[in-house]
Amino acid sequence: VRVISVSGEGEFGLIRRIVDRLEQRPEVVLGPGDDAAVIAAPDRRVVATTDLLIENRHFRREWSSPYDVGRRAAAANLADVVAMGARPTALLVGFGAPGELPIEWAESLADGLRDEAALVGASIVGGDVTAADAVTVAVTALGDLDGRDPVTRAGARPGDIVVLSGWPGRAAAGLDLLRAGREDDPLADAHRRPTIDYAAGLALAGEASAMIDVSDGLLADLGHIATSSGVQIELAAAALPTDAALLAAAHDLGVDAFAWVIAGGDDHCFAATVGPETAVRLPRIGRVVGVPSGQRAGVVVDRPVPKVAGHEHFRS
Amino acid sequence: VRVISVSGEGEFGLIRRIVDRLEQRPEVVLGPGDDAAVIAAPDRRVVATTDLLIENRHFRREWSSPYDVGRRAAAANLADVVAMGARPTALLVGFGAPGELPIEWAESLADGLRDEAALVGASIVGGDVTAADAVTVAVTALGDLDGRDPVTRAGARPGDIVVLSGWPGRAAAGLDLLRAGREDDPLADAHRRPTIDYAAGLALAGEASAMIDVSDGLLADLGHIATSSGVQIELAAAALPTDAALLAAAHDLGVDAFAWVIAGGDDHCFAATVGPETAVRLPRIGRVVGVPSGQRAGVVVDRPVPKVAGHEHFRS
Repeated sequence: VRVISVSGEGEFGLIRRIVDRLEQRPEVVLGPGDDAAVIAAPDRRVVATTDLLIENRHFRREWSSPYDVGRRAAAANLADVVAMGARPTALLVGFGAPGELPIEWAESLADGLRDEAALVGASIVGGDVTAADAVTVAVTALGDLDGRDPVTRAGARPGDIVVLSGWPGRAAAGLDLLRAGREDDPLADAHRRPTIDYAAGLALAGEASAMIDVSDGLLADLGHIATSSGVQIELAAAALPTDAALLAAAHDLGVDAFAWVIAGGDDHCFAATVGPETAVRLPRIGRVVGVPSGQRAGVVVDRPVPKVAGHEHFRS
Repeated sequence: VRVISVSGEGEFGLIRRIVDRLEQRPEVVLGPGDDAAVIAAPDRRVVATTDLLIENRHFRREWSSPYDVGRRAAAANLADVVAMGARPTALLVGFGAPGELPIEWAESLADGLRDEAALVGASIVGGDVTAADAVTVAVTALGDLDGRDPVTRAGARPGDIVVLSGWPGRAAAGLDLLRAGREDDPLADAHRRPTIDYAAGLALAGEASAMIDVSDGLLADLGHIATSSGVQIELAAAALPTDAALLAAAHDLGVDAFAWVIAGGDDHCFAATVGPETAVRLPRIGRVVGVPSGQRAGVVVDRPVPKVAGHEHFRS
């Protein structure tokens, strides 16, 4: 078996192989192959976000397949666009890799990016490939507001309730399972490739007063809403969704599942504040109140919180 | 003197320091600080491109100041937007760095990105910071077409003339001077920080039938226009602009200046094809003809071409 490497194929060959696997939807006015792409922006405003994933920092090649890395890299950015109340339209991808990386790795990464983007109808419209010591995936996502106002972190009002899509803590649990050598635990997949309820996020677009996707940890990200909005958020610990697999894994590893749930990042659950009369059918995990005199904006939890901080790069 | 490092400051402190140095123009509906930015796209189409710069691949910290790296990283992307006939509006920047990097390095990089973007009225609207072994700068640029059609590589027609802004080969010469230890040669700055004639590129937006920014080398990039357009481009070697500093440097290093001029990338000169009646005041370096029977689309040069290829990553 002859292994074709990234360097064996060369820059232009690699680009051609990747572009051949992609699919351009009608909103793409001009796709890959020119100096830049052109994408429809019917709202006259474009939503844009970017994330950098680097191997051995955000993923390990021995733990995650390239397809999963692609899914996850796309998901992190698509969730940010949806958390603004926008519909994702396009991804651009910068890809750095050592020359000896098998070409199939890059192709499978592209497949993962393409398939995750397809879940929300977005296309991979452009990118850049270059040599690098560490596999590097820089994704930018664009989206359209379809005439709605963006949903920021600053709109939460006293009286709102807090809702949450998905199960926070699963990606953090998955990472701890991988670190403990339990690569075959199904929950490990939650780290490799988060499952994001895009439909729930998109449904919140017209409804939420504030929204965020949980990437730093639920407590930290609700804290971002609270401080941006100048409110307190009362979090009801018993209302937080916790699945049985998470509890079982915590038992096995001898850790507190609650720490994963409130401090684990990278699940990209959508946390939002909505008016009390909302028809949104998502778990209600807390409520928004004014900041009591002498106190500060932030999150108040009704049970002791384990000493863990939200995820912050450069500190771990 | 206490050196504050990137890790000492932490992710959120670093982001705050960088954002404090930026300036948001009126087209920025929502700048840094939320899940994503929102930028005006009055044309209802957005132009988008991305580039990945990695230390010791695209720059060396001992050769280039962080300010220059920022200018160059922004320039490479802004030039791609302009080469589509669009006006740059916004940059997003993914930044990876070792924890021990001095905080001033990151701040100066941000200043360089900001100042280059300011040359065309664009703002740094968002980004991401993360830990990495190699300093990594992933820039995405967005732009607006202001109602014009995008200028692709595919529009060159027989009868058009080829025009060029700037002096190709200077960045390649600068890199060779740096490699030869001549860090103080003024031409070395052409590698550190290309000077791009954005005004010339923007003026071509309504006029050019095809346009590209020269990043792979003049011969390779004109080749992209020729093959995309299905034409031949006859390049007149004597018409190529070559400055005296370039000739002097070639003499000093004992190399052929013509190799730099036709194969050197990274100057981001704008090469365009325009109708013969054009009022564009740029050097005319060749003309577009049909593909003669039995020949292929491509570039024909009227003097022998040194055996050098355009710049291709993974092959060097």
